[in-house]
Amino acid sequence: MNEPTFLAALRGLPLHPGAAGLRDDTATLAGLTLTTDTLVENVHFLPTDPPADVAWKLLATNLSDLAAKGATPEGVLLNYPLSDDSWDRAFLAGLDAALRHFACPLLGGDTVSLPAGTSRVLTLTAIGRDAAAPPRSGARAGDALWVTGTIGDAGAGLAIARGKHGPTELLEAYRRPQPRIALGRILAPKVRAMMDVSDGLLIDASRMAAASGLAVAIDLAAVPLSQAYRVFRGDDRAARLAAATAGDDYQLLFAAAPGFAPDVPATRIGAFAAGNGLALHDAGAPLALPARLGFEHAA
Amino acid sequence: MNEPTFLAALRGLPLHPGAAGLRDDTATLAGLTLTTDTLVENVHFLPTDPPADVAWKLLATNLSDLAAKGATPEGVLLNYPLSDDSWDRAFLAGLDAALRHFACPLLGGDTVSLPAGTSRVLTLTAIGRDAAAPPRSGARAGDALWVTGTIGDAGAGLAIARGKHGPTELLEAYRRPQPRIALGRILAPKVRAMMDVSDGLLIDASRMAAASGLAVAIDLAAVPLSQAYRVFRGDDRAARLAAATAGDDYQLLFAAAPGFAPDVPATRIGAFAAGNGLALHDAGAPLALPARLGFEHAA
Repeated sequence: MNEPTFLAALRGLPLHPGAAGLRDDTATLAGLTLTTDTLVENVHFLPTDPPADVAWKLLATNLSDLAAKGATPEGVLLNYPLSDDSWDRAFLAGLDAALRHFACPLLGGDTVSLPAGTSRVLTLTAIGRDAAAPPRSGARAGDALWVTGTIGDAGAGLAIARGKHGPTELLEAYRRPQPRIALGRILAPKVRAMMDVSDGLLIDASRMAAASGLAVAIDLAAVPLSQAYRVFRGDDRAARLAAATAGDDYQLLFAAAPGFAPDVPATRIGAFAAGNGLALHDAGAPLALPARLGFEHAA
Repeated sequence: MNEPTFLAALRGLPLHPGAAGLRDDTATLAGLTLTTDTLVENVHFLPTDPPADVAWKLLATNLSDLAAKGATPEGVLLNYPLSDDSWDRAFLAGLDAALRHFACPLLGGDTVSLPAGTSRVLTLTAIGRDAAAPPRSGARAGDALWVTGTIGDAGAGLAIARGKHGPTELLEAYRRPQPRIALGRILAPKVRAMMDVSDGLLIDASRMAAASGLAVAIDLAAVPLSQAYRVFRGDDRAARLAAATAGDDYQLLFAAAPGFAPDVPATRIGAFAAGNGLALHDAGAPLALPARLGFEHAA
């Protein structure tokens, strides 16, 4: 079963009011914000990725979901598959450093062993407080679409991790994503809708539009690229499409009222309108959508 | 790395006050009780187990941890590996029924795909409220050790699931464990320490003793066996040792003051004393400990 089909089926199960119809990456309960993410070896990370970076990424991807709610991390639960001593020790050292970096202590968890030959599967559940962002369904027709930072760096970093030659800065963006916790807190009370870019700018923007019952148009020429990315991949249409569909950016994507002026590093990349679906243009000229808008789990 | 070594290392990481030193199966936060359990195919369940039973077990094992706190289930998060249509559909139907049975709605979760040939790894995180039980470290010297229900049925059921001939009732105990939620609520305010029996009566009792800084002695002859178990495995010392080390019972194990008289189905099986470690006797005669006290994850 693919992800959208499974999610649709889940919506038919008994849902908690705090699940908000499973339309968001987080749930709310007793004033807390809950989110959980699983990372799978050979799917979300490479067997050759340093274990400390896997620990960082496991925490960072979850905290990015809290950031999109403007929430402050309170604690985490870890579900860990026991492995060989050296991998486990390096993971623990990396997790220790990451928990300290984000001031987010461990609440509990579970350890298991996996059958030989099974890819590592790691789950982390993060709990935050003081969320202040509206749901991702809050965009209105006429709102502008914004994104923080730059897009595509992690995608380029994955190519480097797989053997391409390129700058450390891009590899770092892939291995050590930075959840936008501080930006999320600043933006949360000012936006109409917000989410993090995890699966790809285009697919995530289309999800925000669908949740809000709107159409969204994105100007590919406006998508912010880093200097390092331009040097590595170029700045033509193909390079921009690759950036906009790569995922793992962990930037914040948000809808804001037409007159909104950001006080954080963010770029206006599109606009919402009545209707549905995603339209792409490149400096004014309409562009056909690529076959793949981003990352989606198949069975 | 094995489970005790990993857990000891985790204790050196930044811990939340609600983690209570990771000495329990649950954490507390904002009046909520949090617990999480991962089930692994070929480790915790068999590839031939019906998917609906795996869903039941995934929920039941978590709710059993809440039961040991006297907590009422509030909601759950699910981390699910997408698979083939028929497995996924059967799992969803089973989860739906189990959530309804325990009046415990879904809060959220995450779906992933696994590389081909990988064992399924499923995680569920349960959140409860109104916990009323003391920590498992609360036993005092002189307290009696009690257990609810009968022990060993699920272990016998696993042998039946693997192909032995035996009564459905034991197979059901393995595939459809019943978390003692109502009993937990009744017992919680009356006990000194409580936990569920998941890894085996002997190993779990020794963990309660260690957490409480005490020794515990268990009378093997007092361990409650079901009629079905006696018929299936017999009632000799070997059968009793098998029951006391099999695990998956999901009964409640608790310490209570010497004069305690239970108002629920429970059996007094031992006593705590100053010192440390587990001692076993059989109707008065000391007994050497078996090599394996229960289930413990290796790397």
